[in-house]
Amino acid sequence: MTAEKKIPYKIYLEESEMPKAWYNVRAHMEKKPAPILNPGTLKPVTKEELSGIFCEELAAQELNDTDAWIEIPQEIRDFYRMYRPSPLVRAYCLEEKLQTPAHIYYKFEGNNTSGSHKLNSAIAQAYYAKKQGLKGVTTETGAGQWGTALSMACSYFDLDCQVYMVKVSYEQKPFRREVMRTYGAQVTPSPSMNTEVGRKINAEFPGTTGSLGCAISEAVEAAVSQDGYRYVLGSVLSQVLLHQSIIGLETKAALDKYGIKADMIIGCAGGGSNLGGLISPFVGEMLRGEADYKLIAVEPASCPSLTRGVYAYDFCDTGKVCPLAKMYTLGSSFIPSANHAGGLRYHGMSSILSELYDQKLISATSVEQTEVFKAAEEFARVEGILPAPESSHAIKVAMDEALKCKETGEEKNIVFGLTGTGYFDMVAYEKFHDGLMTDTIPTDEDLQKSIATLPKV
Amino acid sequence: MTAEKKIPYKIYLEESEMPKAWYNVRAHMEKKPAPILNPGTLKPVTKEELSGIFCEELAAQELNDTDAWIEIPQEIRDFYRMYRPSPLVRAYCLEEKLQTPAHIYYKFEGNNTSGSHKLNSAIAQAYYAKKQGLKGVTTETGAGQWGTALSMACSYFDLDCQVYMVKVSYEQKPFRREVMRTYGAQVTPSPSMNTEVGRKINAEFPGTTGSLGCAISEAVEAAVSQDGYRYVLGSVLSQVLLHQSIIGLETKAALDKYGIKADMIIGCAGGGSNLGGLISPFVGEMLRGEADYKLIAVEPASCPSLTRGVYAYDFCDTGKVCPLAKMYTLGSSFIPSANHAGGLRYHGMSSILSELYDQKLISATSVEQTEVFKAAEEFARVEGILPAPESSHAIKVAMDEALKCKETGEEKNIVFGLTGTGYFDMVAYEKFHDGLMTDTIPTDEDLQKSIATLPKV
Repeated sequence: MTAEKKIPYKIYLEESEMPKAWYNVRAHMEKKPAPILNPGTLKPVTKEELSGIFCEELAAQELNDTDAWIEIPQEIRDFYRMYRPSPLVRAYCLEEKLQTPAHIYYKFEGNNTSGSHKLNSAIAQAYYAKKQGLKGVTTETGAGQWGTALSMACSYFDLDCQVYMVKVSYEQKPFRREVMRTYGAQVTPSPSMNTEVGRKINAEFPGTTGSLGCAISEAVEAAVSQDGYRYVLGSVLSQVLLHQSIIGLETKAALDKYGIKADMIIGCAGGGSNLGGLISPFVGEMLRGEADYKLIAVEPASCPSLTRGVYAYDFCDTGKVCPLAKMYTLGSSFIPSANHAGGLRYHGMSSILSELYDQKLISATSVEQTEVFKAAEEFARVEGILPAPESSHAIKVAMDEALKCKETGEEKNIVFGLTGTGYFDMVAYEKFHDGLMTDTIPTDEDLQKSIATLPKV
Repeated sequence: MTAEKKIPYKIYLEESEMPKAWYNVRAHMEKKPAPILNPGTLKPVTKEELSGIFCEELAAQELNDTDAWIEIPQEIRDFYRMYRPSPLVRAYCLEEKLQTPAHIYYKFEGNNTSGSHKLNSAIAQAYYAKKQGLKGVTTETGAGQWGTALSMACSYFDLDCQVYMVKVSYEQKPFRREVMRTYGAQVTPSPSMNTEVGRKINAEFPGTTGSLGCAISEAVEAAVSQDGYRYVLGSVLSQVLLHQSIIGLETKAALDKYGIKADMIIGCAGGGSNLGGLISPFVGEMLRGEADYKLIAVEPASCPSLTRGVYAYDFCDTGKVCPLAKMYTLGSSFIPSANHAGGLRYHGMSSILSELYDQKLISATSVEQTEVFKAAEEFARVEGILPAPESSHAIKVAMDEALKCKETGEEKNIVFGLTGTGYFDMVAYEKFHDGLMTDTIPTDEDLQKSIATLPKV
C-alpha cells in the first residue's frame, strides 16, 4: 500500500454536487406498495386522517407514490451541509486484510453527533413541523439514536422535543439521554405518568421497564392531546425512506464521479430506513431497465422479518394505534430476544422494501450477533471506525462476499452502508469481549404464535 | 442563510494536497527551548539515554531542533488518509446565532474513533516502534483519549499495547476501556500488582484510586523491564508537537486555498499537543517575519500553568522518572481540582509553547468550567457537534472574541481548534445539566506550596 491511490480513500462530493431533491422510488414502481390502512375503518387512510397525527406536508409525502423527485427545501440543505456530504470510503485496509480482489466501498453516516443516518430524516421532519407553525413534536426512542437525532433537529429549528424513552434504556443508557438533554429535549422514561396509556400500564404492571410499543403509544397520545404538537417516527414510513434517499443519491454521485459500477449493495435492515435510502436510486435504475445490481438486506437472526416473516397487513406498532401497513412481518406481538442491535429489533419492514422483496428485486439474509461482533471488531481494527451493532450486520455480509471473491478471483465492487458508530454500545462490546454474548433465534413455533395474531384484513 | 456560500461549510483538502512532511517549529526559533535534562545527572540528555525509554527515531526527533521539515513516512500517510484530512469548518450557524460580523472557522479533529487529535501522534509513535522491530509499547492514560488512540495505532501495526489506566478512570469510564479492548490493548488499572512501583503504592496506600503520575511510573517501569518494549507519551514532548503539526499545516493549506487570512488562532492547552500542532506553521511565519497572528492558549482556571505558573525546570511526571524540562509549571506536585477536562489537568506545558509564551509570541487566558460547558452546549445546539470538555475551552474564548467583534463591528477571521468529541464525557454534561458543576480555582497559597517543590536546577 505504498503507491498513491487512483481512487481516494474517501470520496467527498463538493457541496455543489450534493443532491437538491430526494428520490421517491415508489414513482417508478409499476406495482406500488399496498396503501396503508386506517386501523378503525380498514380503508386506505386519507391525507386528512394522517394529518391528525403527522405534519401535513409529511402526510402528503407519505401518500405520494407518483412524484419521482421532491425538492429538498433550502433550509434542510443548509443543515445537511453541516454534516454532509458523508464520505464514500474505499476500504483499502480491509481489502488488504482479507486479501480479496474485490473492491469494497462503504457509505459512512456516523460522522455526526446523533451517530447515525437518522439525522437525515429528523431534520426534514422538524423542518416541516416548524413550517406548519407547530410548537413541538413527540416521539419514542429505544436505543436512543433516533431520539438524539430528533433532539438535534428540533434544537436547530427551536422546536420543543418530547421523547418517550423505553424505561430500561433510559436507565441503562444514561449517556444517550444526556446527549438528548444537551440538545434541550425533554426525555421521559416510558411508561410514564404523563399519559393515560402510561398510567394504565404502570397500574397494570407495577415496576415494568417498558417497551417500544408502549413508548409509541405514549408519544402518539402526547401528540394528539397537546395543541400544536405532532408525532414523528424515524423508520418504516415511506416519508422516512424518501428523506434517506440522500444516502443513495450521494453514493451514486460519488461512484459515478469515479466511473465505478457497483456490483452489489448491502445494508442492514430493521425498519428499513437506511437500506431503503441507500438502494432507492439504484432500484430506480433497475426499474427503468438502466442497470442491474445485487441488493442484499441483512437482518439479525433473532428478528428475521424478511427471511422468515409473512407478507401481510399488520400493525406498525405494538400499541396498535398507528395505521396498518402491508409488510413482511413477524406479527406485532413478536418480541425479539435481547439482541444488542436495538435498531434492528422491529417486527416488520418498510412497505416499500417489502414490496421490492416480494418482487425479488432485493434479496435478504440473516446473521447471528456473535458473528456480527467478530466482523465489527475486525473491521474496527483495520478501518479505524468503531461500528454500531446495527451497521455491523452489513459489514459481516460484505466481508463474506469479499471472501467469496477471493475464492473465485472476481474483482467485484461491493458497496455497503455503514450507518453509524458504536460509541454508546460499549456494553455490547464488553459482553462480546467477555464471551458472554448469546444468540437467541426464534423457533418456528415462536413465529407461528406471533404471526397468528395478525389482524384479519 | 439561504444563498449558496462562497466558502463551503467544510473545507476538505484533496488527498493530493495533504502535507507530506511535518513542520518542526524549533528550527526557526532563534532562541530554542531549553534542553531537557537527565533527572540523575541534571545534564542535557543524550540520544542514547533517551533511547532506553523511547524508540530511537523518536528520541532523535525529540532532540532535533534544526531540521524544519521531517518527511512523513508513506505508511503513516496511508493511515492518515483513513481519517484525514480533517475538515476546516466555517461556523456559519454559530456566527448567525451570535450575530457577529466575525468569520469563525474550526479545525475539527474528532472524526475518528479515538475521538480526538491524539491519533496523529499515536500512529507515528507506533510506526517507529514497529520499524525498530519492537514487540510493543507501554503508556498511561487518564481520561482515555490517548490510550484509545494508541490502541488503534498499535492494532494497525500489529504491536502489543499495554495501557496503565488511572484506576478511578478505569472504574468510572468502562466504555473507554472497552474501546481499547476492541483494539486489542491490555488495559490495567493503576496502581497494579504488575510493577514494583505499583505494588509499593498499593502496599503504602491500600485502596488508592491512583493518579496519572503513578500510571506513568508504572508504564515506564513496564517498558524498561520487558525486552522489546518502549514507553510512549501523548503530549508535552516536542516529538508530539512535531507530529501534531499536521493539524496546523492542513489548516493553513485550507485557508490559503480560499485566500483567507486568519487574524487569531485559539486552542485549548493542557500539555500543549493540540495547540502546538495547530499554531506551529503560523508561528513559523511569524518567526520568519512573513505574517502576524494573535495566538491564544486557553487553559482551565483550575490548572493555570501558563497564566499563573513559573518558567523553570521541572519534572514532567509526578513519579519523577522522566527527564526534566524547562516549562511553565505549577510544580509536579500540583493536584488540580476535579475538572472534567481531564486532558487539561497537567501541571506543566510543552517546552516549545513555554518558550514561545516567554517570548510573547503567544498569549494565554484561563476560563472556568461552568462557563466552558455553557459555551459547549450553545455550540452543540447550533453546530451539531457535541464537543469534548477540553475543546470547549477554545470554543468559549472563540465565542467571546466573536462577541467583541460584534461590539466593534470588525470582520475578523477567528480560527480555533476543535480537538474532539464529548461522547465519553456525558457524566460531565449531566453534572452541568443538573446544576452540580463547580469550579475550584487554586489559591495563591496552593500554588506557592506546589511551586516551592520545584527541583533545584
